Amino acid sequence: MGSGSWGTAFANVVADAGTADVVMWGRRADVAEAVRERHENPDYFPGIALNPALGATSDAAEALAGADVIVIAVPSQSLRANLARWKEHIPADAVVVSLMKGIELGTCLRMSEVIAEVLGLPPEQVAVVSGPNLAREIAERQPATAVVACAHEPTAVRLQHICKSAYFRPYTATDVIGAELGGAVKNVIALAVGVAVGMGFGDNAKASLITRGLAETVRLAVSLGADEHTLAGLAGMGDLVATCSSPLSRNRTFGERLGSGMTLDEVIAETRQTAEGVKSSESILALARRHGVDVPITAAVVGMMHHDLSPAEALLAFMSRTAKPERYGV
Amino acid sequence: MGSGSWGTAFANVVADAGTADVVMWGRRADVAEAVRERHENPDYFPGIALNPALGATSDAAEALAGADVIVIAVPSQSLRANLARWKEHIPADAVVVSLMKGIELGTCLRMSEVIAEVLGLPPEQVAVVSGPNLAREIAERQPATAVVACAHEPTAVRLQHICKSAYFRPYTATDVIGAELGGAVKNVIALAVGVAVGMGFGDNAKASLITRGLAETVRLAVSLGADEHTLAGLAGMGDLVATCSSPLSRNRTFGERLGSGMTLDEVIAETRQTAEGVKSSESILALARRHGVDVPITAAVVGMMHHDLSPAEALLAFMSRTAKPERYGV
Repeated sequence: MGSGSWGTAFANVVADAGTADVVMWGRRADVAEAVRERHENPDYFPGIALNPALGATSDAAEALAGADVIVIAVPSQSLRANLARWKEHIPADAVVVSLMKGIELGTCLRMSEVIAEVLGLPPEQVAVVSGPNLAREIAERQPATAVVACAHEPTAVRLQHICKSAYFRPYTATDVIGAELGGAVKNVIALAVGVAVGMGFGDNAKASLITRGLAETVRLAVSLGADEHTLAGLAGMGDLVATCSSPLSRNRTFGERLGSGMTLDEVIAETRQTAEGVKSSESILALARRHGVDVPITAAVVGMMHHDLSPAEALLAFMSRTAKPERYGV
Repeated sequence: MGSGSWGTAFANVVADAGTADVVMWGRRADVAEAVRERHENPDYFPGIALNPALGATSDAAEALAGADVIVIAVPSQSLRANLARWKEHIPADAVVVSLMKGIELGTCLRMSEVIAEVLGLPPEQVAVVSGPNLAREIAERQPATAVVACAHEPTAVRLQHICKSAYFRPYTATDVIGAELGGAVKNVIALAVGVAVGMGFGDNAKASLITRGLAETVRLAVSLGADEHTLAGLAGMGDLVATCSSPLSRNRTFGERLGSGMTLDEVIAETRQTAEGVKSSESILALARRHGVDVPITAAVVGMMHHDLSPAEALLAFMSRTAKPERYGV
């Protein structure tokens, strides 16, 4: 459900895996038709041949009818409204899988929590897929790995078989909270890494921010009930490293411009599309404060994005914190 | 002890921290003189002004006389012979710190084990510093973080105060094994990442290799008695991410050439200096087999470096392994 870049690329992975029939749903009839008839998504992947077995429709009821597994990749903040519209067509025993990496504004709920709440599903019918999955590379069938997480392990194993292909290697896990938190916080850390790069710092600073960024993700995730090992894996570290390395990341690029001396207003004006981490940094900081978790990098990002803190001041604040053991607050 | 790039940069960090008198020892009298008189190491950092308070000598006895803390940064395989020469000059109560990232050939001992063995020191007098520490960036006083690990925490805290400066942020830890294993295995993983980059793969594959590479480092380190959290930190993940991101890394560059289609002989001929991971991959694989630990990426690197396995075959072998839970073998 969703014909954006990740929805399209993942549907194609499942079609390439060849163990299930896949029908993609997209809001726009012309995109669905292009996927169905020409095996191409001209909006996101012009020139890339999708699997001819991949079906597509713009009729949600048609896509959902009789589905065993429903994979959702719509904008995070539109999930609740979409689910409400689709609810009557979703088979009662279907497993619903989230590909989304966001936290619902206001409620601070993870995407799988929104799914469980709106559809009234038990944990064994809700799963997430996350990992170092830049969509374009996966559409190009370059090798990648991912985590399929469901509280009910047999469901995760079943989903793993559905999407394991020659170039896509999914691992199973049971920690849904950890898999989702990794994806949500990484955008904020990518902003901080971008700022450091924009300020001219090198690979040590970048690697330090990535590592300490993951440490604060672990503290927050564990306080919410996650298993910290999940964050050390593909859905935590893997996704974070891929996003922070990729020049295609909107968050990293946004930070880079800010770090190189542009004002926040200038960056926003030039970027048009707001980077996800700019918004979510505030809700993640709120969540951390509610749970008494120390998240200095997220706090610095909130300061820079919302309270006129300059990159130089943020750096100074970070480097002059009291000396600590590497591992604390878990 | 050692006037190479990391020895020089770290000595300068301690001088910049300003809480201890530092005398650097270098084998070559002209380098020691340049550091002492012109505050410059012309071999490694021409044009970078070292701290004027940094002393230097080519007389080891002079450098070691009355030292409270002795920091060693010589080539890994020369450590034992150097220690034998220095032993009589090392004060009995001095703390000895290793900056080295290697495993002794033949014995498979970590650097701190060689130090403890040759000098007969108890764990509270042996420490290591590791982390995402590309030497050039630190000499340039760009921000970086590190881990100071000693089994005896007060020693780690004492060392932390000696090297904490405005741009260098050390964290303490007590897991020496984990800190050293992270540094040793990362060169092997960097080779694998280089191969993937050379084959034209993107950020997903790179991040996947880095993450799964760390997973096998964790399995090996834990089987040797390390705390897995150390590997999730700066001396594990941090160092690995910095090395794998840096185009300056010899290991990454070596792998890149191999991945882009050059034969091993051509790469070696062009590189002159053998990348560290090429040698150490074999001893790390031997260590893993001895402890019954599964290290598929290291095994693939050994295959490519020593047994004519082609990059394409190595990739295929890796991607076609049986599907697994993300976390196993710990």
